[in-house]
Amino acid sequence: MSNKIKKYKKDLDYSYSLGIYLTIELLTYKIDQVKCVYISSNTNKSSGVEKIIQICHSNNIQLEVNDNIINKLSPKQNCYTIGIFNKFENQIDSNENHVVLVNPSDSGNLGTIVRTSLGFNLRNLAIIKPSVDIFDPKTIRASMGAIFSISFEYFNSLEEYIQKFKIHNIYTFMLNAKKTLHNVDVNYEQPFSLVFGNEASGLDKKYETIGTSVIIPHQNKIDSLNLSIAVGIVEYEFTKIYFKR
Amino acid sequence: MSNKIKKYKKDLDYSYSLGIYLTIELLTYKIDQVKCVYISSNTNKSSGVEKIIQICHSNNIQLEVNDNIINKLSPKQNCYTIGIFNKFENQIDSNENHVVLVNPSDSGNLGTIVRTSLGFNLRNLAIIKPSVDIFDPKTIRASMGAIFSISFEYFNSLEEYIQKFKIHNIYTFMLNAKKTLHNVDVNYEQPFSLVFGNEASGLDKKYETIGTSVIIPHQNKIDSLNLSIAVGIVEYEFTKIYFKR
Repeated sequence: MSNKIKKYKKDLDYSYSLGIYLTIELLTYKIDQVKCVYISSNTNKSSGVEKIIQICHSNNIQLEVNDNIINKLSPKQNCYTIGIFNKFENQIDSNENHVVLVNPSDSGNLGTIVRTSLGFNLRNLAIIKPSVDIFDPKTIRASMGAIFSISFEYFNSLEEYIQKFKIHNIYTFMLNAKKTLHNVDVNYEQPFSLVFGNEASGLDKKYETIGTSVIIPHQNKIDSLNLSIAVGIVEYEFTKIYFKR
Repeated sequence: MSNKIKKYKKDLDYSYSLGIYLTIELLTYKIDQVKCVYISSNTNKSSGVEKIIQICHSNNIQLEVNDNIINKLSPKQNCYTIGIFNKFENQIDSNENHVVLVNPSDSGNLGTIVRTSLGFNLRNLAIIKPSVDIFDPKTIRASMGAIFSISFEYFNSLEEYIQKFKIHNIYTFMLNAKKTLHNVDVNYEQPFSLVFGNEASGLDKKYETIGTSVIIPHQNKIDSLNLSIAVGIVEYEFTKIYFKR
């Protein structure tokens, strides 16, 4: 098997977790998808590595010491373990709140958004194609493994998504919006969809009328907030009600 | 001059803006620091390039077509102009609100934080050393040129910073905090300082008592929010009062 493992490309049907932390997340949340785990020969048998060895043994997962594979797949020197897994897709839950990303184009941003969304318990992510690859090892790394704990589903267009989830209240985030995030009234009796456009172009104006359009007020010395920052602020505000103590 | 321009290193006394957008920001907000501007020979004379040429001419700034320099300094193919500028530091304003970053270690994060801070009109940034280099071209790029519109000042320790700004109310953001961001009472009669720790280690526990410690509530499926996301959410919440319409 190890001879066939290739450096990541989008059209492969597997991807991998680089490093101890990500590999433990993979084994914890997506063990059914794991093909095998590679370990470096010069790992100092840290508690993380011990944990990985133990999980693999108790679950009959192939474990191999293989420095060639690690050097081939890892761009950094200090990578001690890599987990190979089959790509997966899971349908998002139609009764839950959704985050919808239209044509996200930056791997790091997408990973950070997945991590932040998990932090605010928004575990259902719709991605409108074309999109950056969610299984890119850079995205997995930026998500700190959160990609293994959420559900995500691809759609060909925002229209296709909206057709499928009719009970959701749609909030579109755009610069020429009618409401500010400070004074938007959220109806929590139905689930919500938070819809964000592409990093460079934002959401097309034609989507102004499909729901409530909202802007995060900021001063005009900057054109717009970074996408992952905007998503974080909106998620924080929309989920406040669930975190009140 | 052009023979002496070197690829960026921290110990150089100059840095550079890569690309048309950043170079216009540089020329608009920090023209006094500009040494010279290089243009590629195959630029298609876009309106951005025309604007740069015009600003340089009216301000007697040396302008040179030089593909060698551009290829040497730019990691990407599609860079048409580079502005070389002297590094600068400006004291932060003691009557204004501050953002304080203790030992930031990621260039991209620092740039994104600078951009977000400008968006929320927090234009005074204190950086506690050791720190990633704010003049790294990667930081400048991630800031989208916002670095040219804010003031920043370095300090050797958080104690040194606190000694200097005695009227500021200090808010420290940490995971074992006493207050949540939802229910912190901000005293807007004095300026505030928002203090954030390093990406990996956070703020040292010893700083728990120097002000009001605050946490952004999130579920514990993630260890913590990404630093730039946390800063964005906190800045949004603390500056809401200034953006209410």
